[in-house]
Amino acid sequence: MPQGKPSVVPEDGLTTRQRRNRPLVVVHTGIGKGKSTAAFGLALRAWNQGWPIGVFQFVKSAKWKVGEERALRVLGDSGEGGTVAWHKMGEGWSWVQRDLETSEEAAREGWEQVKRDLAAETYGLYVLDEFAYPMHWGWVDTDEVVAVLRDRPGTQHVVITGRNAPEKLVVAADLVTEMGKVKHPMDVGQKGQKGIEW
Amino acid sequence: MPQGKPSVVPEDGLTTRQRRNRPLVVVHTGIGKGKSTAAFGLALRAWNQGWPIGVFQFVKSAKWKVGEERALRVLGDSGEGGTVAWHKMGEGWSWVQRDLETSEEAAREGWEQVKRDLAAETYGLYVLDEFAYPMHWGWVDTDEVVAVLRDRPGTQHVVITGRNAPEKLVVAADLVTEMGKVKHPMDVGQKGQKGIEW
Repeated sequence: MPQGKPSVVPEDGLTTRQRRNRPLVVVHTGIGKGKSTAAFGLALRAWNQGWPIGVFQFVKSAKWKVGEERALRVLGDSGEGGTVAWHKMGEGWSWVQRDLETSEEAAREGWEQVKRDLAAETYGLYVLDEFAYPMHWGWVDTDEVVAVLRDRPGTQHVVITGRNAPEKLVVAADLVTEMGKVKHPMDVGQKGQKGIEW
Repeated sequence: MPQGKPSVVPEDGLTTRQRRNRPLVVVHTGIGKGKSTAAFGLALRAWNQGWPIGVFQFVKSAKWKVGEERALRVLGDSGEGGTVAWHKMGEGWSWVQRDLETSEEAAREGWEQVKRDLAAETYGLYVLDEFAYPMHWGWVDTDEVVAVLRDRPGTQHVVITGRNAPEKLVVAADLVTEMGKVKHPMDVGQKGQKGIEW
């Protein structure tokens, strides 16, 4: 694909180089497929750059993302690119030493860890998978998320996925893609299948 | 995410199990980001299932998809999942022993190889990256593509990406996602950057 040219150059006092390297907040939302899949695809690029990657899965799932997790763990352990740390809410978050009462509490704990990692500049890419849901449900305060992302130090890219991304997050994000459903096999009686859905 | 229930069960004489395992034609189209990225994310699932993966890149690019290529090559060579074969049009296609005069001829050569591989059931997942373009430009006949995909033997999933997927392909596909642009950093003067765009 040809490289795009900016349609507007903002008067923000930044040089093109500074602007080019400004870390991004990316949102994948909408009712179609591919939101998480594209986020994990993006992680391949981050891995290739040698960036440490932190994945936080914010919604429990029977299937999780087993293929993506195994692939990224193999890549992270290969010694050829960046490292990969994979955190799952539904398994109690690895850093939490006590029982969490509710999914709401678990989601908040996840976000607290993301804040700590952003402050410590732990990762170059954060995949906050399905993180739109706890914001949409009011479990995590969207205003706080927007402020923390805006003020995060260093060069840390953040990808957030989930169907109902709050408008405030969309406004604050740098890159937003809405995955729209045109056609889905479940519409005609097909069910999810291995290798495609998980 | 909860597993979806089919809204309609078609009278196609197939059992649920047969329908569930019917191989898919997946199309990622639209003007937004994430079409190719989500296709390579899907390849992680296929890799995890141990399927041989064939990637065919149908459009020359200065940046290609270097991150995805390196990651999938490392995965393919890890011995832990499926194998990965990566073919690039812009480098003359590895199997072609003569000079190709034009991009149109090169695209046709790529499609001929895909046909041979489909007939031989070489791969479990085909990523035909940017293949919507040669169809859109009339270099490859969409009717023929639809017929070849419809009649392909065995269990071979095919993902096709590209901005202008022909309507006939969309009609024939099982799963179609349109990536819509909501916001892009180039709109405000940011340029593509490593680890995100490539």
